[in-house]
Amino acid sequence: MQKPINIAIDAMGGDNSPYKIIEGINIHSKNSDEVNYKIFGNKNIIDPLIKKIELSKLRYETFHTENSIKDTDSALSAAKKGKNTSMWLSIESVKKNNSDAAVSAGNTGALFVIAKLNLSMIENIDKPALSGLWPNKKGMNIVLDLGANIECSEKNLVDFSLMGAALHKALYESEVPKVAILNIGSEELKGNIIIKNTYQILNNKQNSFYEFHGYIEGNQIMDGNVNVIVTDGFTGNVALKTAEGTANFITSELKKTINSNIIGKISSLINVKNLNKFKNKLDPRLYNGAILLGLDKPVIKSHGSTDAIGFANSLKVCEKIIKGRLIDKIKENIN
Amino acid sequence: MQKPINIAIDAMGGDNSPYKIIEGINIHSKNSDEVNYKIFGNKNIIDPLIKKIELSKLRYETFHTENSIKDTDSALSAAKKGKNTSMWLSIESVKKNNSDAAVSAGNTGALFVIAKLNLSMIENIDKPALSGLWPNKKGMNIVLDLGANIECSEKNLVDFSLMGAALHKALYESEVPKVAILNIGSEELKGNIIIKNTYQILNNKQNSFYEFHGYIEGNQIMDGNVNVIVTDGFTGNVALKTAEGTANFITSELKKTINSNIIGKISSLINVKNLNKFKNKLDPRLYNGAILLGLDKPVIKSHGSTDAIGFANSLKVCEKIIKGRLIDKIKENIN
Repeated sequence: MQKPINIAIDAMGGDNSPYKIIEGINIHSKNSDEVNYKIFGNKNIIDPLIKKIELSKLRYETFHTENSIKDTDSALSAAKKGKNTSMWLSIESVKKNNSDAAVSAGNTGALFVIAKLNLSMIENIDKPALSGLWPNKKGMNIVLDLGANIECSEKNLVDFSLMGAALHKALYESEVPKVAILNIGSEELKGNIIIKNTYQILNNKQNSFYEFHGYIEGNQIMDGNVNVIVTDGFTGNVALKTAEGTANFITSELKKTINSNIIGKISSLINVKNLNKFKNKLDPRLYNGAILLGLDKPVIKSHGSTDAIGFANSLKVCEKIIKGRLIDKIKENIN
Repeated sequence: MQKPINIAIDAMGGDNSPYKIIEGINIHSKNSDEVNYKIFGNKNIIDPLIKKIELSKLRYETFHTENSIKDTDSALSAAKKGKNTSMWLSIESVKKNNSDAAVSAGNTGALFVIAKLNLSMIENIDKPALSGLWPNKKGMNIVLDLGANIECSEKNLVDFSLMGAALHKALYESEVPKVAILNIGSEELKGNIIIKNTYQILNNKQNSFYEFHGYIEGNQIMDGNVNVIVTDGFTGNVALKTAEGTANFITSELKKTINSNIIGKISSLINVKNLNKFKNKLDPRLYNGAILLGLDKPVIKSHGSTDAIGFANSLKVCEKIIKGRLIDKIKENIN
């Protein structure tokens, strides 16, 4: 019999928790029978909730803690609250090898600090990166760093290339992922000195783990011609949030236009199936789950404002990462 | 009688020129009778075209040149071609005070270099910035720098704040534009050292020309709560292009979904008026015209791939900038 996968879950982070967390576990458990759940949080709320869902007692365990990290906590105050929070305990469960991965929908800064305090970096990697899943015309990209490091060296960006490629392989079983650097032009002479140096290093690297595709520009992120897009955390965060803002702007303008008169309302009723298909394709819950890369255990950040479906998807990301041997893939290829 | 406005036009830059340029002049001239056009390019093509449109001979003049800057020219090779190109001559016309503003749909890098070679910087401004118009939920933003300067100092970002505010006043007659710095969080402690220092300078500045609104994030660019968004050219360029790519991705997904079956096609036919209204609101031709700020004369870059309608809009931007006394506004407030 195969050993089950254990996921440590911070049940108290994000909006509407632990309700959405337990419902997310419910959804995930129906689609996967290989995962057991270690759930950290307020047992007084969690235990009655989890008893209501159809989940065998063999597949979960709850661990009580009174405290939790708030969205308003700074990273520092979160670290001080520390050991008796659901976030800390779920990371500690991974540290102690009781779980294979940890997931939280709580405060990103706090998760980052608590993960770094508890877990070791993979040898030869200097900085962890926050990587995200980004839809494109042909499937999904990995983009990193999305905000963990405001400034990055050539070494960091080269590490991110490898880690991003390992993540793409683990999640999507790609053979040789294509890696590109985000820049403001496709010519070799564009960009700042760190980007240009990184280009030279990646271009000269003998490497069969991924394929280097040079520079891409912001408007090409969603073309689907590469799989991994590497950038510093400042640029990556601005790009991600600008894309979110643009998507939000366009869909709200579309809604406004469609609902502006009776013809629009009627024809969108006729077309409801198609519009739903469109909505589903862009549903951010499908891409929910940013991954902290560089630590020697997998830590996954679910969006704080996502719902049970979104949280179930970040559990799926955890499961795929473990099955895809993400950490081993990074370790085996870092040198 | 009021003195007419003279706009110097590079008729040879961008796709499908000079055809779209002359048609753009045609469109613009019907909506404005205060502008005369000085048109630089190949007279053998231009003269027959312009005779076909209904434009009084008193309102235009054509100037022959055999050469033009190609999109494939590097900034350096463009500068070498120099004096006998339509781009150079249109900038020179502004330099010699024969025209009030210059506009080109040609190569951005070349336009930047040729403008800098010919025109002076406004006193006390160190670097020119490329600023663009960006739609938001309530109207239009100015975003700068969009790619002229990969790295920017505090002084540059403070200058950009003033220049962006002056541009917003000139174009949209806003009273006291709201200026924000693009960052990856709204807290004072986020961002790199240059951004933090700029925050402090703008926050302490006594200034009635614009109102400083602190930081905004990428997802807030289109909210319409500020008027001017200041960033370095690398970040601005990535943000702009990411927004373009996202808009393109969403509208192509929407089209695909709507056209995927007969119901979708029928209901979008019923809804054609609404969908067109939606398309018009997002039409990038409406926002066509990036403005080089910091030089002591107005230079406007039209998108190379725009059509006659888009080019007519960049002529409108020129006209508004001149009527709105953009350069004077910057000069009067720089110290």
